[in-house]
Amino acid sequence: MGKKNKQFVEKVTAMEDDFAQWYTDVVKQADLVDYGLVRGTMIIKPYGYAIWENIRNELDKMIKETGHSNVAFPIFIPESLLQKEKDHVEGFAPEVAWVTHGGDEELAERIAVRPTSEALFCDYYSKNIHSYRDLPMLYNQWANVVRWEKTTRPFLRSSEFHWQEGHTAHATDEDASIETERMLGVYADLVENYLAIPVLKGRKTDKEKFAGANYTLTIESLMHDGRALQSGTSHHFGSGFAEAFDITYLDENGESQYVHQTSWGLSTRIMGGLIMVHGDNRGLVVPPRIAPTQVMIVPIAQHKEGVLDKAYDLRDQLKEVARVDIDASDKSPGWKFNEHEMKGVPIRVEIGPKDIENEQVVIVRRDTGEKEFVALKDLQARIGALLADIQQNLFDKALAHRNEKINIATTLEEFKQTLDEKTGFIKAMWCGDQACEEKIKEDTQATSRCIPFEQEKISDTCVCCGKEAKELVYWGKAY
Amino acid sequence: MGKKNKQFVEKVTAMEDDFAQWYTDVVKQADLVDYGLVRGTMIIKPYGYAIWENIRNELDKMIKETGHSNVAFPIFIPESLLQKEKDHVEGFAPEVAWVTHGGDEELAERIAVRPTSEALFCDYYSKNIHSYRDLPMLYNQWANVVRWEKTTRPFLRSSEFHWQEGHTAHATDEDASIETERMLGVYADLVENYLAIPVLKGRKTDKEKFAGANYTLTIESLMHDGRALQSGTSHHFGSGFAEAFDITYLDENGESQYVHQTSWGLSTRIMGGLIMVHGDNRGLVVPPRIAPTQVMIVPIAQHKEGVLDKAYDLRDQLKEVARVDIDASDKSPGWKFNEHEMKGVPIRVEIGPKDIENEQVVIVRRDTGEKEFVALKDLQARIGALLADIQQNLFDKALAHRNEKINIATTLEEFKQTLDEKTGFIKAMWCGDQACEEKIKEDTQATSRCIPFEQEKISDTCVCCGKEAKELVYWGKAY
Repeated sequence: MGKKNKQFVEKVTAMEDDFAQWYTDVVKQADLVDYGLVRGTMIIKPYGYAIWENIRNELDKMIKETGHSNVAFPIFIPESLLQKEKDHVEGFAPEVAWVTHGGDEELAERIAVRPTSEALFCDYYSKNIHSYRDLPMLYNQWANVVRWEKTTRPFLRSSEFHWQEGHTAHATDEDASIETERMLGVYADLVENYLAIPVLKGRKTDKEKFAGANYTLTIESLMHDGRALQSGTSHHFGSGFAEAFDITYLDENGESQYVHQTSWGLSTRIMGGLIMVHGDNRGLVVPPRIAPTQVMIVPIAQHKEGVLDKAYDLRDQLKEVARVDIDASDKSPGWKFNEHEMKGVPIRVEIGPKDIENEQVVIVRRDTGEKEFVALKDLQARIGALLADIQQNLFDKALAHRNEKINIATTLEEFKQTLDEKTGFIKAMWCGDQACEEKIKEDTQATSRCIPFEQEKISDTCVCCGKEAKELVYWGKAY
Repeated sequence: MGKKNKQFVEKVTAMEDDFAQWYTDVVKQADLVDYGLVRGTMIIKPYGYAIWENIRNELDKMIKETGHSNVAFPIFIPESLLQKEKDHVEGFAPEVAWVTHGGDEELAERIAVRPTSEALFCDYYSKNIHSYRDLPMLYNQWANVVRWEKTTRPFLRSSEFHWQEGHTAHATDEDASIETERMLGVYADLVENYLAIPVLKGRKTDKEKFAGANYTLTIESLMHDGRALQSGTSHHFGSGFAEAFDITYLDENGESQYVHQTSWGLSTRIMGGLIMVHGDNRGLVVPPRIAPTQVMIVPIAQHKEGVLDKAYDLRDQLKEVARVDIDASDKSPGWKFNEHEMKGVPIRVEIGPKDIENEQVVIVRRDTGEKEFVALKDLQARIGALLADIQQNLFDKALAHRNEKINIATTLEEFKQTLDEKTGFIKAMWCGDQACEEKIKEDTQATSRCIPFEQEKISDTCVCCGKEAKELVYWGKAY
């Protein structure tokens, strides 16, 4: 037995015992990633990449359907360009990897490996936008970016990660607002309907917004351990970057105007969310709509005559309704069960000599572990229905879990106590003063996650200072 | 009229007058690329990226169909790792962009921005291959790489470019040979049948092979100006990298063996080939199979009642057989004609009030400029047939041009004279001595392009030294 197979029978650490270790075990044992040699980089392995490709393909479709074009901008940004927008460079410079030499030659100016690409798009827009006819300009790119982080974890915080970044320019502030919301809606659609992860939609506080943005919209999800994950953000820049980069257009009256911009990104970070929302102590659980393999057929007693033939027949039949694969390797069935459970394949189909005799198969669903016998003639229909059911069940379970973990606090004492006793989000009123936000973070380690679009009034006063409350905020410890 | 539209009525430089300038004009005016701010980087604009995406999607399918899995390896390689294979580091170190700082911190070891990823894959294989059961390991990644080049041109030689790089490990030398040839075949299929560019298949001489390879296979194509373009390469490493990186496996007898490896890559360079093989003095010509828009409908007198409605009807009809778009902007028809010709859209459909009356449209094909009237009821079928015909015609034209430009030389004098008088490939016999290859390059600036799989004997002696000839070689000036 090769060393490679062995890992699948090793169990993962129980999440109740050590959630961080459970996470690390799952990413390794489900064959999602390996560590790169340079600090904080990761190798996304075939299975991990296949899941990311499915997410990417769905999101790419949505981005195109909302009128955006894909482009490819350079990975290199001259230091002087990055410095044009003051808040932006302050936010990102500490995390920049700097190229100083090309071959043997020392460069006259340092070059940033892009941590994000606003500066490059802005420079391009300043040269290529002239008239109102050129607007809106709706660009997107799928790219790798680098942020030199102190502590890293696969997917959640890696020094290189993969994402898409949209960059758009509009004639009016309102057009930019509509775009910012539209793309947050696209992210919410993707994450809820494909990844089966419920999200809270809202606005970031000024403290937590993107460096250089007017405001940032966010979708926030809740992990199994009660910590939050920022899962996608959409930024409204107003004309701040346009003024810094001199991006103007002539309006219908021939007058020069600044453009209004947005940017929005969703990254491989969401893979971490996928793991921590749906995974369990037997490993990963992948929602059917993004599962590389939705149905894995495991032949039982495959050396017996007719079993493998029948299994291949089944595969060909099921191809019409699902992404199906067959494991005809010479490992034992039990070994295969563990392996495909660890990888989170939504449905396992077992077929052996007895099943063939009875014209049936055994079906096991990954999310609940439930087994059922299904007559061969009903199999196609049953698989189709079951995939939809699993998708819905994963979402419902995650939603119930998330809702269970939304706590309320009206005083800072209550806030601290709740956070000590429970995990999850804390809903609390806020006066809008950054000093309170900072105090809460200092006292509790919880940050403001978002000011939800759906506002409620749970008390009249700020949870921190007791002055008049302005709005409801979701708080939480976050990844 | 915005500045942006203006460019389309500017003509491109005639290729007969200045081929290099013609190329630059086309890439700019067909809206393919713009220049990045860091030397030699490029911005691939929406139209250029849409073509690349189509090429990429077709190739990705082929790579998956031949059993390979996509992965994502880090962009960063520690200097020490790059140095493990001597020939490899010598070949690439002079072109490496070096990261020396992360934020404010100076790094203990310099990090290379990957110029290619053999070192990383080898390190991974050394840790993840244990038994013959793990082989073959068939990986591919779509990635950006950086080579700090002295002189650059969009697509042809840019300091950052996009490509796929396949990296595979096999149990035997023969398995690696089969893989090396298989992937060259995939490239030839893609380039001939999708990009309509005929290729010569062959082996590189040792002088021209990849740094660290045992041998390199190549597809070579011929540009309109008679210069060659290396269009895709597939490398056989034998066990050279395996020995340098200690990549071993236990065979069926429990004995430790080195693996045998390959790598193969095709890049955005091929976009340059596309332009220089099919383009003409009216701009780009895109083969239908990779054209983002195959049919552009241009309404004539679109302000007249019923014209736009009919044009949209047409579009909906044609959607079933082609990637079709409609240009309903307020530019004049003549302007639109020029614009879509510059972008190389294969077919233009014109429809105006008279055509509607006569239940017909005007069709103009981009490759030949031929016009025809087609009855509305025949349109779908005609478009389908025409797209196939254009695809074939582009290939046939390119093949005839290429074949016309294959010259023969039996002496160095003849070689020089032929190259002075004509352009294109020169077929000549070679003794196999690198000294002759170097002398030819020095005297003529022509390099060996490949030792073709299809060998002929056109004389008994080496074109350079007059000693006994070993094999036929294609020579040429190259991009």
